[in-house]
Amino acid sequence: MSTYFEDLEAGRVTDLGSFTFTAESIKDFAAKYDPQPFHLDEEAAKSSIFGALCASGWQTAAVYTGMNIRTRLAREAEARARGEEIARWGPSPGFKDLKWPRPVFAGDTISYRQTIAALTNFKNRPERGMLVTLGEGLNQKGELVFQVTGQILVPRRVPLDAPEAGVAR
Amino acid sequence: MSTYFEDLEAGRVTDLGSFTFTAESIKDFAAKYDPQPFHLDEEAAKSSIFGALCASGWQTAAVYTGMNIRTRLAREAEARARGEEIARWGPSPGFKDLKWPRPVFAGDTISYRQTIAALTNFKNRPERGMLVTLGEGLNQKGELVFQVTGQILVPRRVPLDAPEAGVAR
Repeated sequence: MSTYFEDLEAGRVTDLGSFTFTAESIKDFAAKYDPQPFHLDEEAAKSSIFGALCASGWQTAAVYTGMNIRTRLAREAEARARGEEIARWGPSPGFKDLKWPRPVFAGDTISYRQTIAALTNFKNRPERGMLVTLGEGLNQKGELVFQVTGQILVPRRVPLDAPEAGVAR
Repeated sequence: MSTYFEDLEAGRVTDLGSFTFTAESIKDFAAKYDPQPFHLDEEAAKSSIFGALCASGWQTAAVYTGMNIRTRLAREAEARARGEEIARWGPSPGFKDLKWPRPVFAGDTISYRQTIAALTNFKNRPERGMLVTLGEGLNQKGELVFQVTGQILVPRRVPLDAPEAGVAR
């Protein structure tokens, strides 16, 4: 599978892999980036609104990013090995609707997936399209713990205004 | 200054401090969470859309979170030292509109600030209000490099439906 806009299909779901949040990894991230007591200390977490040590939401987001990027880079490496030209993705106008519906507790294993939520054409940027993704993380009980909407520009193999693009304008 | 909803004032700006993104810190974060070539390697970055080694957007967001949380914890510690009761903030329904208008290059110093963008009352949750914040990061040239809208529930000192709250309903 190549990586141009024409190859993307709305609704396609990609499994990105899973990650187990150990108490150690939760505390390491929190000490640097989110030093709230319920991310740093089991005892303090007991009396918090969460009731037990749980991961910073920014860690669950960063782990998602890592899995998303590694999946994309692996796909690009495969395409390169087949001698295909690789499209340069980006930049991204940003992310939306970052949510953590449930805590990620120490020991939880989160499975991440990404769904192609929308594919948008731009009349004034015929050489690229916008890929809108829904990223999700589910715990071992199948409960949603993380959600984010991503946006990134992806080059088209054939510009939208070229006659061979076959796209209604 | 205490930390109840009544003490918050729309438009108030808080300086959160600054952080210099060394090449080492950029590569460390990227190796774990965002292993794209332009976050990992100076040479590879030269031929990328960014032109030089630059930080993962998720690192600029994580650093913002760390500064935001440390500022809040310091304010709480001061209030506690004065014998004041500390309000328990949270949970957060999530963040919105995470944007990186410009890259953060190795060596850049980013100053972070937070503005109270809105204060929302809920008729059906009289004991809490929603604090909406605009977080921003600016580089040493004063250019905006990071932006995020945060939301968090903050307890009221006096419930909204209590006669002494003096809030029109």
